[in-house]
Amino acid sequence: MRIADRIANLGTETAFAVSAEAAVFGSEGNRVFPFHLGDINLPTPSTVVEGAQKAIADGKTGYCPNSGILQLREALAADVAASHNTDYTAENVVIQPGGKPTIGKFILSLMNPGDEVLYPNPGYPIYESQIEFNGGVAVPYGYVEGVENFALDFDSIERGITDKTRLLILNDLQNPMGAECSVEEHERLAELVRKHDLYVLADEAYFDMRYSGKSTSFVTQPGMAERTVVLYTFSKRFAMTGWRLGASIGPREIVDVIAKINVNDESCSNHFIQYGALAGLQGDQTEVQAILDTLEARRDATAAGLNAIDGISTFIPNATFYLFPNVTELMERKAMFNYEEFRRAALHATGVSFTSRIHFGRELLGEQNKYIRLAYSGIDVPDIEEGLALLKEWAEN
Amino acid sequence: MRIADRIANLGTETAFAVSAEAAVFGSEGNRVFPFHLGDINLPTPSTVVEGAQKAIADGKTGYCPNSGILQLREALAADVAASHNTDYTAENVVIQPGGKPTIGKFILSLMNPGDEVLYPNPGYPIYESQIEFNGGVAVPYGYVEGVENFALDFDSIERGITDKTRLLILNDLQNPMGAECSVEEHERLAELVRKHDLYVLADEAYFDMRYSGKSTSFVTQPGMAERTVVLYTFSKRFAMTGWRLGASIGPREIVDVIAKINVNDESCSNHFIQYGALAGLQGDQTEVQAILDTLEARRDATAAGLNAIDGISTFIPNATFYLFPNVTELMERKAMFNYEEFRRAALHATGVSFTSRIHFGRELLGEQNKYIRLAYSGIDVPDIEEGLALLKEWAEN
Repeated sequence: MRIADRIANLGTETAFAVSAEAAVFGSEGNRVFPFHLGDINLPTPSTVVEGAQKAIADGKTGYCPNSGILQLREALAADVAASHNTDYTAENVVIQPGGKPTIGKFILSLMNPGDEVLYPNPGYPIYESQIEFNGGVAVPYGYVEGVENFALDFDSIERGITDKTRLLILNDLQNPMGAECSVEEHERLAELVRKHDLYVLADEAYFDMRYSGKSTSFVTQPGMAERTVVLYTFSKRFAMTGWRLGASIGPREIVDVIAKINVNDESCSNHFIQYGALAGLQGDQTEVQAILDTLEARRDATAAGLNAIDGISTFIPNATFYLFPNVTELMERKAMFNYEEFRRAALHATGVSFTSRIHFGRELLGEQNKYIRLAYSGIDVPDIEEGLALLKEWAEN
Repeated sequence: MRIADRIANLGTETAFAVSAEAAVFGSEGNRVFPFHLGDINLPTPSTVVEGAQKAIADGKTGYCPNSGILQLREALAADVAASHNTDYTAENVVIQPGGKPTIGKFILSLMNPGDEVLYPNPGYPIYESQIEFNGGVAVPYGYVEGVENFALDFDSIERGITDKTRLLILNDLQNPMGAECSVEEHERLAELVRKHDLYVLADEAYFDMRYSGKSTSFVTQPGMAERTVVLYTFSKRFAMTGWRLGASIGPREIVDVIAKINVNDESCSNHFIQYGALAGLQGDQTEVQAILDTLEARRDATAAGLNAIDGISTFIPNATFYLFPNVTELMERKAMFNYEEFRRAALHATGVSFTSRIHFGRELLGEQNKYIRLAYSGIDVPDIEEGLALLKEWAEN
């Protein structure tokens, strides 16, 4: 069979292999502590469920417009305009079946083959895959350890910019590191974007998943709303990962192109779920807040458990549901220099399942420190405590 | 703004402009008879609705596998294996958010830039758009009027095949013509596919939408299941157009590639809706049959109304929910030689809204006859009769 040549450039999420290994280990009768999952094991708020069910009863089961129902586009534009200090209207919003579709559609809309695209590494692996699948050149930039947080490595960003650089992908409130940009970082980045005439994908999947303080979007920087597409998703905020609903929000000219891609790729997103999301945005926020409260307790338990282990230290981000501890000392003490060897040893000794730095992009030249990623969105506090106690015992003996 | 070059090759469904015109005409206080819509104005069977609602209650609101839930893949493989006389298993099935996604993913998986792809014209306009958007050469083939049905124009198919031809798109039980291949046509086509080493997309969106007789798939031809991807959708059979659920069914090697595209494009299809579809496949079929009975009555009313008009004649297909009447005589009598002029004149004089041949591809060289398309899936029998009586009055005066 002759599969098309382009498929050789299509990447994947290698973290799925970790899930599969954990499932096998569990099926052999072992206890698994699932820190590898970026999914949420909490119910969707009843406002969303009831809104969707009412829409089914009201016959919202036929096609809807390619860009989504007007009411949801209006409500989402108002919500995001307020939190982003922009003047977005419904014309800036095109509904998508999830957050992920915005990545590929942004690249298809703005990148020509041969264009260079800066993307975060460690970062969500689909950026690199979609850039290369569509004929672009994926140029990674990194992060450095700050005082309380990971910070953008501006040296690597500036080094990465050439006269072929066209796009920059920013994942602020980041997966896997939980990194959050300061306003100073946004300003410095906006200056580079203006200077080099770049367009930006602001992946804000975790914008509303924060436990204290207030998220600030890159698009609040002067002129940036005009050259940025925001990836919005209902998945995290409303515990709707399996419902598949999100949006691309940006300049009308790009949003119109993305809507035309919708016509070709999937016609439209599910009709009645859009009414569910509308009810979620406009209804009582008690259950939405309860999701955050639950996740915050898990974050604290996970961070405490990790920082109690000799040879492991982690920042405690105010947002996302990931911790990205530095395990350099522990790996050295265990004389393990290979990420997969370390991950498997921990899984088999303790049942604690996590992903590592290499599931989020190729290691960069000169990387000294070793990191793993623990997601606490799919595991309850008692299991967090039990699992990390076992990890401590294994680590320190 | 510098939109990517490839967007210039992205097509659309021009029929949306007809919907928009009808909506404007209606908003001005006019009665509209909506024969332009390929949507279904009937409720989704309660088996599906209740299956999905139970799944939400059971917490099926998180991510599911990229290929879809195993139970649905198994049930669908069994269903299609039986109707297609093949040995499909779950490994041949990858769930999609609708029927449409299979078109683009089939092309991405098998077509290199510069490859030629045969596709039906008149036909669903997304074939041509996806071929050209992804760098292929779209080569149309036509149909000829047979005795009771449109038939494949094998002259145009054979003329279209060159040493660069790689793929063939077959839409049997076709939109917009309602055309259905005979077994002899399948045999002749399979011979060409073998001889020229082609791969086939069998768009079977209307396979189960038939009123008498039994649909036969192209993949029952020897060796064709090994080189064909079937586009399956739940949209029509279960009146689920707005739910967005379908599948790509074919050789495992291609299905695995398509699943990897799923990882990149949308992660997975909605989780709980897959349980709804499973319940629809396995539950009581009374409501599913009632959908067909309703559509059959509409077909008969539409065909009778059209054939009563001097200068219009239509075949009466046993499947799909479209009629594709020949209106050559009427247009000549009205001295209208432009499709859009004719369509608009009919709309403004009678409120009867329909699409025409040009919404389904560019006219082919040497085309003599004129055709319009009436969809009867979104309009009830009394409205069909009233609208077509008005059309008759306008046509004959």
